[in-house]
Amino acid sequence: MKHPIVPALAACLTAAAAIAQPAAPAAAPSPGEVIAAAPAADWQAIPAADILLLEFAGNRRVVLQLAPAFAPTHVANIRALVKDGWFPRHAQIVRVQENYVVQWGDPTEKAPIPAAIVARPADGYEQPGKPANFTALPWPDAYGAVVGHAGGWPVATDGQAHWLPHCPGMLGVGRNMAPDTGTGAELYVVIGHGPRHLDRNIALVGRVLEGIEHLSALPRGTAALGMYDRPEQRIPLVSARLAADLPPAEQPRFQVLVGQSLATWAGVRANRRDAFFNRPAGGADICNLMPPLRRTPQAK
Amino acid sequence: MKHPIVPALAACLTAAAAIAQPAAPAAAPSPGEVIAAAPAADWQAIPAADILLLEFAGNRRVVLQLAPAFAPTHVANIRALVKDGWFPRHAQIVRVQENYVVQWGDPTEKAPIPAAIVARPADGYEQPGKPANFTALPWPDAYGAVVGHAGGWPVATDGQAHWLPHCPGMLGVGRNMAPDTGTGAELYVVIGHGPRHLDRNIALVGRVLEGIEHLSALPRGTAALGMYDRPEQRIPLVSARLAADLPPAEQPRFQVLVGQSLATWAGVRANRRDAFFNRPAGGADICNLMPPLRRTPQAK
Repeated sequence: MKHPIVPALAACLTAAAAIAQPAAPAAAPSPGEVIAAAPAADWQAIPAADILLLEFAGNRRVVLQLAPAFAPTHVANIRALVKDGWFPRHAQIVRVQENYVVQWGDPTEKAPIPAAIVARPADGYEQPGKPANFTALPWPDAYGAVVGHAGGWPVATDGQAHWLPHCPGMLGVGRNMAPDTGTGAELYVVIGHGPRHLDRNIALVGRVLEGIEHLSALPRGTAALGMYDRPEQRIPLVSARLAADLPPAEQPRFQVLVGQSLATWAGVRANRRDAFFNRPAGGADICNLMPPLRRTPQAK
Repeated sequence: MKHPIVPALAACLTAAAAIAQPAAPAAAPSPGEVIAAAPAADWQAIPAADILLLEFAGNRRVVLQLAPAFAPTHVANIRALVKDGWFPRHAQIVRVQENYVVQWGDPTEKAPIPAAIVARPADGYEQPGKPANFTALPWPDAYGAVVGHAGGWPVATDGQAHWLPHCPGMLGVGRNMAPDTGTGAELYVVIGHGPRHLDRNIALVGRVLEGIEHLSALPRGTAALGMYDRPEQRIPLVSARLAADLPPAEQPRFQVLVGQSLATWAGVRANRRDAFFNRPAGGADICNLMPPLRRTPQAK
């Protein structure tokens, strides 16, 4: 290793490396080349039932993926709110906090919640046990977890439970003080450096697939916590649909990189050897290793 | 520890903890309470000679701090460009890439660079030796460094050299392919999750003190690398001045948190025990521990 680190962390990295993937080989391709070369089998289709299509006023279209494997009750709540038509009746973007979150919900906090909604889902902070089909990354995590990928998601685990990490683009459920875990009527997306201290403190229920720039580039709120202080600044959510409820020809289709291609991509991301780089980092943060996504290519 | 982690990383954290600060005590205040209680001696004044005042078209005012201790030649270049009046003659925001950087420079790439500019400064990637007055954080770093604070800056080190990490709000010098390290005529600010793989690959020369929302909320560029594809999208830099060149009464004054208050703040940030949190994270990323800043309070 060309660039030694202090002994305590060197031991740490050696120990961590023993549990995970090898680093990229010396003559590694670029991350983009790995993605371009990935076989079709390493592109996993995202179910239409999990794809949430939101349109905010001003033609701001955002496509999200729900994560029923990580937050089943919360996802059921969100699907029920969509079915009810609750979001376009009541929800607006009310908060845009710099380097933190964009949040939408009912600014009056008085709109009745449909009866089908479970008020305080127990899931969403973490799932018990080890994640299935988990590939750990070999680098340490500042938040004390083992981090890696499972089923095309970024995942953190302590060996007893596993959870989604708060990375840019992740979708969460706003809540009041504990033990409230939120109904799903108020949602947020992370913008900025991943606020991982929220992991297991707020339910994460999905991620943005496309259109995050319609959220992250919004004017910041100037009231406390980035709230918009004047009602006219708020941005109504005009439409919320699940892709599965559209005619098949109109359903957007997405894929996420998994398998060996994802592992190889993570390795070369952490050890950039393409021409621009003087010095490979030798590691990477899980939030800089969000699995690549794409629209499903048209059949030829 | 209530939430055990897997053995390999548990050993790692124990080893890392031995080199640094204790965690927050059980009945810790909130991070905001630590800041509010910090004595005046823990607020370090930022020199007026290091404060760069930029105004982009549309009254977008951004205040930055240059870092001569980390990149002396690059900072001298930037000061010379300011003195020359080069920026308002030539620079525009040309690139806004989602979850990455905002960059400004000469879109023609043909404007002559003043003779005083050192074309390829050797400094800026890293400084030799250990950082002075360094307080290490006790948590591991995914990029293999020991991270912490020194002189009010976030700092990473491998024990042989030290450098500024690519966190949101950090100011860097755009460059072409190596061995070019950039003249300072093209600058960028990190927006989004810290692209730490750029550490020691591009010169970091400062950080934003105020007004980052005028950069981070700009429309994203739709050409490759987030470049604005039409000239009319670009945003001219209309003014660039150093605070030290203003009359004293007009100089903005800033302070950064240092010393024990900064260490205590980092500890409670990583171990949130205020009411909203169910579960303290037990660690934190250096980019979520950017030293708090404030305008210098008026004398009473």
